[in-house]
Amino acid sequence: MKSVNKVAIIGTGVIGASWAAFYLSKGFQVSAFDPAADAELNLTTRVQSYLLDLFELEEHKQGDSESYITGLLNNLRFYQNIADAVKDADFIQENGPERIDLKKQLYVQLTQNCPEDTIIASSSSGLKISDIQQDCVYPERIVLGHPFNPPHLLPLVEIIGGEKTHTKYIQDAFEFYQSLGKKPILIQKEVKGHVANRLQSAIWREAFYLVSEGVCSAEDIDTAITNGPGLRWAIFGPYLNMQLANQQGFKAAMHHLGEPMSEWWADMKPYTLTEEKIEMLDDATQHFVNSLGGKNLQLLRNQALLKTLKMRAELDLP
Amino acid sequence: MKSVNKVAIIGTGVIGASWAAFYLSKGFQVSAFDPAADAELNLTTRVQSYLLDLFELEEHKQGDSESYITGLLNNLRFYQNIADAVKDADFIQENGPERIDLKKQLYVQLTQNCPEDTIIASSSSGLKISDIQQDCVYPERIVLGHPFNPPHLLPLVEIIGGEKTHTKYIQDAFEFYQSLGKKPILIQKEVKGHVANRLQSAIWREAFYLVSEGVCSAEDIDTAITNGPGLRWAIFGPYLNMQLANQQGFKAAMHHLGEPMSEWWADMKPYTLTEEKIEMLDDATQHFVNSLGGKNLQLLRNQALLKTLKMRAELDLP
Repeated sequence: MKSVNKVAIIGTGVIGASWAAFYLSKGFQVSAFDPAADAELNLTTRVQSYLLDLFELEEHKQGDSESYITGLLNNLRFYQNIADAVKDADFIQENGPERIDLKKQLYVQLTQNCPEDTIIASSSSGLKISDIQQDCVYPERIVLGHPFNPPHLLPLVEIIGGEKTHTKYIQDAFEFYQSLGKKPILIQKEVKGHVANRLQSAIWREAFYLVSEGVCSAEDIDTAITNGPGLRWAIFGPYLNMQLANQQGFKAAMHHLGEPMSEWWADMKPYTLTEEKIEMLDDATQHFVNSLGGKNLQLLRNQALLKTLKMRAELDLP
Repeated sequence: MKSVNKVAIIGTGVIGASWAAFYLSKGFQVSAFDPAADAELNLTTRVQSYLLDLFELEEHKQGDSESYITGLLNNLRFYQNIADAVKDADFIQENGPERIDLKKQLYVQLTQNCPEDTIIASSSSGLKISDIQQDCVYPERIVLGHPFNPPHLLPLVEIIGGEKTHTKYIQDAFEFYQSLGKKPILIQKEVKGHVANRLQSAIWREAFYLVSEGVCSAEDIDTAITNGPGLRWAIFGPYLNMQLANQQGFKAAMHHLGEPMSEWWADMKPYTLTEEKIEMLDDATQHFVNSLGGKNLQLLRNQALLKTLKMRAELDLP
């Protein structure tokens, strides 16, 4: 892969700004473009806040956070048109709206204006690269580079190419993210929702079903996760946890748990969202939120996330 | 509820021993019974190791771990028959095998030998209290008190009564666990797998499906969880995470995510375990385990669990 000096961030909403902060923290020049009004101001504000997270995460021994942030902001440049933002970019991270018509149009523009060997990674959570790349010049360097929100903190990046993507670029993108300390995974088949969102939505479905059926409250669901299995999921995933569920390992655990688990699966029903159900689930959630007495949940989650990431680094968890 | 001085632990395998350590750490006299050969020796060994975890978790400022453990072990007594173990117990935590015929028989014995107002809480992960309590004397004090493994560390306890259980005892059990620092939830309807196991098995199903379909590897699934959504689940559960997924809160997040999520749900297939699939998933898991180069995963998980629990306490997370 060619050496990367400048990364272009296309689409600078919450995800794009978080990516921008991440790339800045890794020492890159970052060029940015977004057609929205106030995009530049919003980007700067968000990037400052995200860089503060990264300053805390990395526990910089020297200097203060202000000079750290000011220094890195010098490497960020916002452009008024897309062509200027990508014309000498070595890697592009795209975070546009999740509409295939807009996305296809955007990629035509991108590929017409950037160098032909520049990898374009899409943060799309739902669209297929095969669809996105259809009308592009050099479609073989277009890949999925789907982060988990917020990308400046969560290490996961899901990678897959489309039908026209060249294997070399998929491998290059994988190694690039890995070299920056990200935890990329290589998806072998295009499936809806990729991997992490499918796993996550499996929990949401059952969480919504149980509350809809009156089995327990929204607060009970959250307590069950954060004081039960959720405590393990920041440590190990489903496979290692099953391996540890029995002293003889995965297979023995499955022989023990497989039968009851199959019964639970059979009892887990399809779930269809309606506006009425969303209202009811929202009431349940706001009831829970109100019981927490005005805690700043966003701040609390960020603090906890930083501590969890530090713990994972200290213990060198996989 | 009557004041509790002595807790009886019936069934002293991994779960029972972990409960024993927990109750000892809370200052109770603990009587124990298990018909297995070597049960007493295994119990003592396990309790010592679990008490060490609790010593570390609570960061006792005075004394060393050895005198802490020796002191508490004086309050543990193993009995050779069940009647002696429960005859003056104020609370019983039962952890017998998950077979309804054995369980019913056990509860007949328990209820014939313990005081009539002693609550009996079952650690059963799959059986219904309505079935367990059928042939008992004073069945109204029998409740589910289902912990998450290991009970000495994980705060969750799932509580529900059976048809013959009196509401008063359900409430008493809830308050008892709560007074000990546990995080009990009150389940309103008997469903298979209670709440936490259903949520957990929803992830396992999709995790098994994706690997079976060749979408990604076992290692990729675990990476996707521990470096993605799993990082949030030790902090907040599905409802608060959805609340934070949009600056306008839960409802706005659902309006944004509901449609793609419904598509992913529609794409998530039923999954039937076979011996062949278990073999394949086991191979995938062992391949991942071997890549970790002999790390002591059990120890690593315990260390990480202790750190996570301390973080949750420090930040006073719900």
